[in-house]
Amino acid sequence: MDVFLSRPLVEQALREDLGRAGDLTSEATISKALIADGVLIARAGGVIAGLEVALEAFRLVDPTVEAERFVDEGDEVSAGTRLARVRGRARALLTAERTALNFLGHLSGIASTTRGVVRAVEGTGVRVTCTRKTTPGLRGLEKEAVRLGGGVNHRFGLDDGILIKDNHRVLAGGVRAAVLGARARAGHMIRIELEVDTLEELDEGLALGIDAFLLDNMSLDDLREAVRRVGGRAVLEASGGITPARVREVADTGVHLMSMGWLTHSAPSLDVSLDVIPVVHEAMVTST
Amino acid sequence: MDVFLSRPLVEQALREDLGRAGDLTSEATISKALIADGVLIARAGGVIAGLEVALEAFRLVDPTVEAERFVDEGDEVSAGTRLARVRGRARALLTAERTALNFLGHLSGIASTTRGVVRAVEGTGVRVTCTRKTTPGLRGLEKEAVRLGGGVNHRFGLDDGILIKDNHRVLAGGVRAAVLGARARAGHMIRIELEVDTLEELDEGLALGIDAFLLDNMSLDDLREAVRRVGGRAVLEASGGITPARVREVADTGVHLMSMGWLTHSAPSLDVSLDVIPVVHEAMVTST
Amino acid sequence: MDVFLSRPLVEQALREDLGRAGDLTSEATISKALIADGVLIARAGGVIAGLEVALEAFRLVDPTVEAERFVDEGDEVSAGTRLARVRGRARALLTAERTALNFLGHLSGIASTTRGVVRAVEGTGVRVTCTRKTTPGLRGLEKEAVRLGGGVNHRFGLDDGILIKDNHRVLAGGVRAAVLGARARAGHMIRIELEVDTLEELDEGLALGIDAFLLDNMSLDDLREAVRRVGGRAVLEASGGITPARVREVADTGVHLMSMGWLTHSAPSLDVSLDVIPVVHEAMVTST
Amino acid sequence: MDVFLSRPLVEQALREDLGRAGDLTSEATISKALIADGVLIARAGGVIAGLEVALEAFRLVDPTVEAERFVDEGDEVSAGTRLARVRGRARALLTAERTALNFLGHLSGIASTTRGVVRAVEGTGVRVTCTRKTTPGLRGLEKEAVRLGGGVNHRFGLDDGILIKDNHRVLAGGVRAAVLGARARAGHMIRIELEVDTLEELDEGLALGIDAFLLDNMSLDDLREAVRRVGGRAVLEASGGITPARVREVADTGVHLMSMGWLTHSAPSLDVSLDVIPVVHEAMVTST
Amino acid sequence: MDVFLSRPLVEQALREDLGRAGDLTSEATISKALIADGVLIARAGGVIAGLEVALEAFRLVDPTVEAERFVDEGDEVSAGTRLARVRGRARALLTAERTALNFLGHLSGIASTTRGVVRAVEGTGVRVTCTRKTTPGLRGLEKEAVRLGGGVNHRFGLDDGILIKDNHRVLAGGVRAAVLGARARAGHMIRIELEVDTLEELDEGLALGIDAFLLDNMSLDDLREAVRRVGGRAVLEASGGITPARVREVADTGVHLMSMGWLTHSAPSLDVSLDVIPVVHEAMVTST
Amino acid sequence: MDVFLSRPLVEQALREDLGRAGDLTSEATISKALIADGVLIARAGGVIAGLEVALEAFRLVDPTVEAERFVDEGDEVSAGTRLARVRGRARALLTAERTALNFLGHLSGIASTTRGVVRAVEGTGVRVTCTRKTTPGLRGLEKEAVRLGGGVNHRFGLDDGILIKDNHRVLAGGVRAAVLGARARAGHMIRIELEVDTLEELDEGLALGIDAFLLDNMSLDDLREAVRRVGGRAVLEASGGITPARVREVADTGVHLMSMGWLTHSAPSLDVSLDVIPVVHEAMVTST
Repeated sequence: MDVFLSRPLVEQALREDLGRAGDLTSEATISKALIADGVLIARAGGVIAGLEVALEAFRLVDPTVEAERFVDEGDEVSAGTRLARVRGRARALLTAERTALNFLGHLSGIASTTRGVVRAVEGTGVRVTCTRKTTPGLRGLEKEAVRLGGGVNHRFGLDDGILIKDNHRVLAGGVRAAVLGARARAGHMIRIELEVDTLEELDEGLALGIDAFLLDNMSLDDLREAVRRVGGRAVLEASGGITPARVREVADTGVHLMSMGWLTHSAPSLDVSLDVIPVVHEAMVTST
Repeated sequence: MDVFLSRPLVEQALREDLGRAGDLTSEATISKALIADGVLIARAGGVIAGLEVALEAFRLVDPTVEAERFVDEGDEVSAGTRLARVRGRARALLTAERTALNFLGHLSGIASTTRGVVRAVEGTGVRVTCTRKTTPGLRGLEKEAVRLGGGVNHRFGLDDGILIKDNHRVLAGGVRAAVLGARARAGHMIRIELEVDTLEELDEGLALGIDAFLLDNMSLDDLREAVRRVGGRAVLEASGGITPARVREVADTGVHLMSMGWLTHSAPSLDVSLDVIPVVHEAMVTST
Repeated sequence: MDVFLSRPLVEQALREDLGRAGDLTSEATISKALIADGVLIARAGGVIAGLEVALEAFRLVDPTVEAERFVDEGDEVSAGTRLARVRGRARALLTAERTALNFLGHLSGIASTTRGVVRAVEGTGVRVTCTRKTTPGLRGLEKEAVRLGGGVNHRFGLDDGILIKDNHRVLAGGVRAAVLGARARAGHMIRIELEVDTLEELDEGLALGIDAFLLDNMSLDDLREAVRRVGGRAVLEASGGITPARVREVADTGVHLMSMGWLTHSAPSLDVSLDVIPVVHEAMVTST
Repeated sequence: MDVFLSRPLVEQALREDLGRAGDLTSEATISKALIADGVLIARAGGVIAGLEVALEAFRLVDPTVEAERFVDEGDEVSAGTRLARVRGRARALLTAERTALNFLGHLSGIASTTRGVVRAVEGTGVRVTCTRKTTPGLRGLEKEAVRLGGGVNHRFGLDDGILIKDNHRVLAGGVRAAVLGARARAGHMIRIELEVDTLEELDEGLALGIDAFLLDNMSLDDLREAVRRVGGRAVLEASGGITPARVREVADTGVHLMSMGWLTHSAPSLDVSLDVIPVVHEAMVTST
Repeated sequence: MDVFLSRPLVEQALREDLGRAGDLTSEATISKALIADGVLIARAGGVIAGLEVALEAFRLVDPTVEAERFVDEGDEVSAGTRLARVRGRARALLTAERTALNFLGHLSGIASTTRGVVRAVEGTGVRVTCTRKTTPGLRGLEKEAVRLGGGVNHRFGLDDGILIKDNHRVLAGGVRAAVLGARARAGHMIRIELEVDTLEELDEGLALGIDAFLLDNMSLDDLREAVRRVGGRAVLEASGGITPARVREVADTGVHLMSMGWLTHSAPSLDVSLDVIPVVHEAMVTST
Repeated sequence: MDVFLSRPLVEQALREDLGRAGDLTSEATISKALIADGVLIARAGGVIAGLEVALEAFRLVDPTVEAERFVDEGDEVSAGTRLARVRGRARALLTAERTALNFLGHLSGIASTTRGVVRAVEGTGVRVTCTRKTTPGLRGLEKEAVRLGGGVNHRFGLDDGILIKDNHRVLAGGVRAAVLGARARAGHMIRIELEVDTLEELDEGLALGIDAFLLDNMSLDDLREAVRRVGGRAVLEASGGITPARVREVADTGVHLMSMGWLTHSAPSLDVSLDVIPVVHEAMVTST
């Protein structure tokens, strides 16, 4: 994601951590002029996401910080891998540390979790996708982490796609009314998707010309039957109750997409840390 | 937390979901005038947090929404429990649904995870506390969720406490320099805490008059020995590597506090949902 | 559009007009307690858009203002039509007047211009659509005004659709590379559209399986030939140089969509005004 | 206008266009490292305004963009004129393109329209001025565009001048009360202007010592008579119903100022575009 | 000032005081449901300003707070006067207390100081005015406090008046160049004022037709001579070094205006406080 | 304070001064290209605070401004001392001047006032501290100014300390209930302080184990007796009615802290100014 887009989120997070008075401990204990090196390190293996955002945190606190990246976003790394180095005022590095790590750990956790699912369904042709069940405020970054993990993105919000869910059907007075309303409103670049719970509803949707379906909480048998009935005429997305253990069997049904809220709302953070050492100038070393 | 404080976060989350054009699907499929009832339901058992924030999401989209709460924040509920009811324009309920659920699920997940730990250490007298390893932007709400789960809060940011960590010690040129600097800076209402990795460092800190220690990644034996040596002269906080499986044995060492980053950065979301039905007026029913 | 979404824009506009010190003239000349009635009136015939936004301006300055609408958004009215009435503190009505009228006139101008085009192409089946050539800051409202005028919306921004334009083709190293890149990135709810300047490029796109084309600045003959070649396999959007005078002949070529930037960037404002009179209480009148 | 003042508006416009996910098409089709040249070109003749703002859009998306201006703000150019060149990451140029052009086209449209009026009244000594009928959010930039076109600015908002209009007179209980109230409130740097509809009202205002009048919707005869009666004792501003066709005859009446809302609310956009080509390094060329 | 304008400042101040976690003490010690009455009291005599802003602080924390005012803004009160009563949730009253009092004390301090000067110059006809030497962020409110104290306002910022100071003269290459530049730029509603240090500069300005002068740091003799020379042809403002002790003698020179930065930047706060008592319902009392 | 934290306040202050149209006078009178030197000068003796913030104002208006500091924050200077030099576009220097000076004068006034108190109590060992009676919006900067003056900071807001005041005691139903509530809520890094008005209340607090007391408005005798009774078991803060004249005698009672609201809410501004001269290039000089 463009730094222009993510910067306000990093600023918000820094202000949240710095409060009104800033980093009391670093101000009280470290000389203002001291320069240090910090190295971002993965403490566990995983897929890296949010590295650029993390580096931006250091730059925002101190625009003179120099950053060097050792891996790319989306790279899979093993425990102990050095991810990037930041050099700048020692105080600034410690002040930005937690904010940087919170982004990096959270987003890498999502990317790593996604990569695990993608790997589990390798060869089936299914695409792994996230939902709108994201952490408030972080949707754009979390969706990018899913992509870095190998997944694809569903819509980003209520305004860039039309997904007719059960509630809409009920409140619209039936699926036909809902679909007609949606067609009149949709621009030509937005695809309409219909959530169905049963094969009967799927048939009804097909009859209305719908070409994308969210198959909600269907059994494996029903998913397979849905794939068979549709015969390539529509995109089929399985959703609901797809636990890690069931990932492969759902993929094997032949659906095109599998969407899982837990990729974004329940992925555990990846353990990352910052090691900081004061910069010893060569001159100082050689003079000994 | 005061609604005054959380409202901007709810607004930000709603704007993130609504984008530039708002809820296309609801606008396209549901009559503007239709009134509906929505019921927030816990799909799994857990401790509720974020209910007020969730209700605020509905009210922000439609100030005429009426909300009725069936449980309180901090209540432990079983799967299927009805948490609250919202009545208002059907469109508004669906527009706010995802934002409301994202807050409610995320925060209840943290409260529930915390409650699990608190229960596991019952009787030991240890206090369970969170860290600054929170989700960017949500620290205040997540810290409150920890409290609702039965935990206590550590400092909220870099500015409301002084915690001298390894990095500060190294960059300050030793623990003595760091402590002196911190003392000169701290107001009389802020307590200084020192992170130590070994018993020797603990002794050094005690000699300097420090009365709160973060014991980082110590073995159980070292934790016990630390408790013995300190003999009540200082607050002891165990931190680092306290996995769910180790929670009880760490608590049994006699430390006063246990801090765990995963309470906030890796707690899985609690499954919550919204059921919506159109409001059928009594008059309409009886007239049939 | 949801008031929740448009309110920040109305607030911004009010602050722009009120500056640091507020409405000097009204404060200096009108009694604080005076209540007045204001009537919004269309001075010229046209299609109304932005009425809700205009009323919101009054409510923001004075939450006790009562508003009554006489027409709906999207209604076509003749010169002299009374659109709505606002009753409240006289000062507040005058303070909000210009902001309210600026929104109402601007958006109704767009709706009216769109309606004119829609009427001119009646019976051809073509859909009239706008572009991203909108006034900075007002895209959501302007796109809604186009819809109220009878048009449909193209994408709202760079992130909710993929439109491969000439520049992308050149910089990607050819249309094939661009299309492949786009396919890998697009979610299943986003449609890919390709801009083409010639029939050869159209053929190339069809061969790549593209199902939506923007036909840029093509002659009427080429547009007709494009419609013939595509034979319903793709959505065709004519764009570029579609002046008011050419609207009908372009529509008659059989394309599905016509997009015109001038619907939003050059539509003249509709003339609207506010008539204000002090409220004379009945009691006062009858007592004479 | 100072970039410091206009930057937030450019940021707002960019965020409006980039949404949550940024420029999907450019990300999907163009190499991250590719450098390109973009040239801003006037497709029609006119007066340039907003060039600095347009260049700022490119710099905000990519701070390394280098910009070179070929013309100055306020310059009158013919169709085909190259206005400026931007060099930077190809993706960034395309991402900022539409935002840059929307500002440039809109503001140049206003400057060009104003210049047309200024030219039409050349030699009469009248000053052409705008009103508060501006596009919400863009007042400062639009007023500057009017100046670049050769016009002068009326007040910027409700707080930097006192203009007693009909509504104030009615609600104040007469012109005398309104003028007295205004005098008590006005600082010594603000001039009070009175709107009058008839010559009688003008006389009344003169008797009250008013030295600036807005002559609203007066006939040419009345305007001439007003000039005669005032005899230089006050500034006279003609306003209302001054269509392009009537511009010269109004100016010829001898009024000092002519204010027209359509300079800002209905000026058609100037057609501008961006041509982008990849940068071919000389070394690469000569090696062929 | 309109609450619409001041509300963002009150919100900012509340967030500054509440931080991330809100009012810990009140939450920890007071029952959520307890209702209380708070009375705002002047502990010293003075002129009240900022009362509306103070009440807004309570309402923002708790929209159900009911406020009753006992005095008006601008009223002069003696020590011990009850200014207003607020009734609402006890917690909310205490949470908003400090923010409310900080505004009220600061602004009443300015109003009181201004009133003292106004009284000291009574009968001279001079107008007392403030400058742009205000507290960052509070200019609008402070200027209003000056008005409530009986003073008048100078310009509100760099954009609503033209004041040619020494620096402009030097950098413009002389007073003539500066005045010509200013005339070309000024709209007809803005008056140009010239700062002069000597009588010679005054003469030079008069010759250029300037009709408002800021007489900077002139002796009483020079001020009197300036009044004599100008003979009513221009507005004369004395400024610089007007200490409280010199206020009357400066006023007696016959200048029209006296501007003093210390009205806003150095006025001591007025001592105000809030007394809070729990609400005892009548029923409860009588039942005893 | 970190520039990252103070920058938004400087931006807000600049926008407040620049309004919608910016610095009319400088634009109208000074050549765009002219470079000038500005020197910040203390017109009176005092302690400098806010210098970095002042320099940031110049940099925000013109990022190419070069600044050189001649003194450090916290330095005590005599009248006439040159504090810093800024070189850049002449217009930018004048545009930022007032904002820069307003911060510098206000904050240096607080630092100077604090230094005066600190000096008056030299040798007593008492620490001088501020309160939450700060100017709305400026708390962080004002608290830093107090530190630069030699004082220490009390809590920054309602959320980073627990201070049980009279109102809490009353509304909690007694001091015991209040203290118990506070203990349950406080984290281990926050100290609880109790406000007491009498020696009896002090005894009561000591019995409850409280180790920090705010002695409110006590007589000198009572303060001395409080010190005697406590005998080092708790921190004692004198507060209320400590006028400049009483500073020393209060300090001599042996309390540990003295808090005074007037350090921040009533400190007069320090007189500072900016001298600006055009830069004459050496080449130009020598060519004469």
